[in-house]
Amino acid sequence: MSVHDKLKSLGISLPPVLPAAGAFAPAVQTGNLLFVSGHIARREGKPWVGQLGGTMTTEEGKQAARGIAIELLATLDSVAGLDRIARIVKAMVLVNSVPTFTEQHLVANGASEFFEEVLGPAGKHARSAFGVAQIPLGACVEIELVVELRPEGA
Amino acid sequence: MSVHDKLKSLGISLPPVLPAAGAFAPAVQTGNLLFVSGHIARREGKPWVGQLGGTMTTEEGKQAARGIAIELLATLDSVAGLDRIARIVKAMVLVNSVPTFTEQHLVANGASEFFEEVLGPAGKHARSAFGVAQIPLGACVEIELVVELRPEGA
Amino acid sequence: MSVHDKLKSLGISLPPVLPAAGAFAPAVQTGNLLFVSGHIARREGKPWVGQLGGTMTTEEGKQAARGIAIELLATLDSVAGLDRIARIVKAMVLVNSVPTFTEQHLVANGASEFFEEVLGPAGKHARSAFGVAQIPLGACVEIELVVELRPEGA
Repeated sequence: MSVHDKLKSLGISLPPVLPAAGAFAPAVQTGNLLFVSGHIARREGKPWVGQLGGTMTTEEGKQAARGIAIELLATLDSVAGLDRIARIVKAMVLVNSVPTFTEQHLVANGASEFFEEVLGPAGKHARSAFGVAQIPLGACVEIELVVELRPEGA
Repeated sequence: MSVHDKLKSLGISLPPVLPAAGAFAPAVQTGNLLFVSGHIARREGKPWVGQLGGTMTTEEGKQAARGIAIELLATLDSVAGLDRIARIVKAMVLVNSVPTFTEQHLVANGASEFFEEVLGPAGKHARSAFGVAQIPLGACVEIELVVELRPEGA
Repeated sequence: MSVHDKLKSLGISLPPVLPAAGAFAPAVQTGNLLFVSGHIARREGKPWVGQLGGTMTTEEGKQAARGIAIELLATLDSVAGLDRIARIVKAMVLVNSVPTFTEQHLVANGASEFFEEVLGPAGKHARSAFGVAQIPLGACVEIELVVELRPEGA
């Protein structure tokens, strides 16, 4: 099953890709690696503002991370095409955290489990997750990726 | 115009490269990728101490980020030569932030806009920017890079 | 001297590799680069909970970072074999910090100096170190790596 078919079977349609909130590219390819910019959590098209351990629960944070994973797929589709994803190599998951919140790994699972569900073994990645003091526009979660691409036309 | 000529036209001279503040290398090359260590903001040769949303404004943070971009170019010149930069692939921009400061992306633009000004399309990069609890020596901003190099003599 | 012999001469035996605390892989290889997941500090097999500048001193943090470096070598040995390490390319060192703690670089040296002691020049890496608001399970330090591998059988 293609990745597009898999997304359809899950009832997921990819959102439009938004312009970057700054002077940078959504992703840059070097060799067969694609470095994808940090994407922040959004809800109804606006930054999903919140802080884990404060205004948000772990379960809500996990949903936010899953939403970012969908936006990351939309970016991957627009810059390369979903069927060129050979492997999600690495994710960095930043969780907007009050100083006492220690479940960043559970929040990050919202994205990690989704990638594996949609991409199978190609979705299983190395990962770092940690709590940060703040995220642009007050978003609750931000995720960046390194992705290995198949050659075009392969 | 060479990168050196472009810098001259902007009235910018590259500072001397300082020794690393720890047991690490300023940059390490693997294949044609150069991983450049986090560089902290400096002013008059000393760490530029401050925290965004506390002791510093967004505009000052942006100037600090621009200053780091100049220091990163100095490191790139010393380890590889500016004319070997094929592409700034990715930047990670850490902003020393009070918990309520949410303009890390605007601070980061100080470096991102500078790279594009000096390097043109080769300066446009993927990026993550976020707020951290603290930075070594109390610096206000820290930036690391992944850079694609042209082969030597090319 | 092989890396295993060097570790033996230092009286260090590699610990068993623990399962990842989430839906991710301990490391993913792409080309000859290995992206290694963030490893948290452990003591007696449990997360080493603490915060620098609060419940822990810089010297204790440095010991924690050294312990993570040993765990990272255990992971490298299990996924690739220690003798295939061509170079530690980059380390990202996250230090669980109170807002006033500014010695993240000294904490990070605990890992950086160890890699150079055990691997020689191949252990000298690019690095970013910074203070984060919190780390999964409350751990005091977390480190991720990018490692260049020699081809198998080389």
